[in-house]
Amino acid sequence: SNRRPLDPESWSESDYNQVAEQYLEDLEEALGVLEDKVDGFDMFNSQGVLTVNLGEQGTYVINKQTPNRQIWWSSPISGPKRYYYDANSGRWLNTRDDSLLEKLLYDEIKELLGTELELSIRE
Amino acid sequence: SNRRPLDPESWSESDYNQVAEQYLEDLEEALGVLEDKVDGFDMFNSQGVLTVNLGEQGTYVINKQTPNRQIWWSSPISGPKRYYYDANSGRWLNTRDDSLLEKLLYDEIKELLGTELELSIRE
Repeated sequence: SNRRPLDPESWSESDYNQVAEQYLEDLEEALGVLEDKVDGFDMFNSQGVLTVNLGEQGTYVINKQTPNRQIWWSSPISGPKRYYYDANSGRWLNTRDDSLLEKLLYDEIKELLGTELELSIRE
Repeated sequence: SNRRPLDPESWSESDYNQVAEQYLEDLEEALGVLEDKVDGFDMFNSQGVLTVNLGEQGTYVINKQTPNRQIWWSSPISGPKRYYYDANSGRWLNTRDDSLLEKLLYDEIKELLGTELELSIRE
């Protein structure tokens, strides 16, 4: 399958850090539009952890997990999920069903807040 | 059962914030001993999210989840878990098996790093 994850062992830690941190920055930028729309909004991205506090709507945490080269997701709506980097598509895909992290984020933010994020999904 | 969680609706947001934030501070204090023992160690506690970066060992994220008055746990060893506050014991217990958050943290840090945390478990 094209979608089979690369063996994490074959991916260097510095390659992983670069790709994962860039991805968190991209998400942070896309989520910035919420700042003026959500009471109690607060977001920070540091040391490989992107935290998005939506006040009474709860908190998202999206973070690097270096040992297995994944990105872990925690959502007040959908709970926890794990994503791996698929080198063929250059995307972060869910370990269970290969779905896109950006797609879920887009759908949930729309459901929670009615706001459509501008995510540069490169499909 | 004594261990049934209080209805989250019956617990005010300010009560929850106070108890949950104090708990995260207690964990932060206990984990501070790792600073001199782990290469790449970094920890921060802000806006209801405690992040513990253990370098190559991975990252813990322990955070408030206000809508359901829980604390959510993400560990590089055991993955995600959810905890509720048990008013009878004054403890945060796992939603699936009523086990203690501190106990799991203690066991995992000992396994990962060989370090015994000093956790003031008040049982």
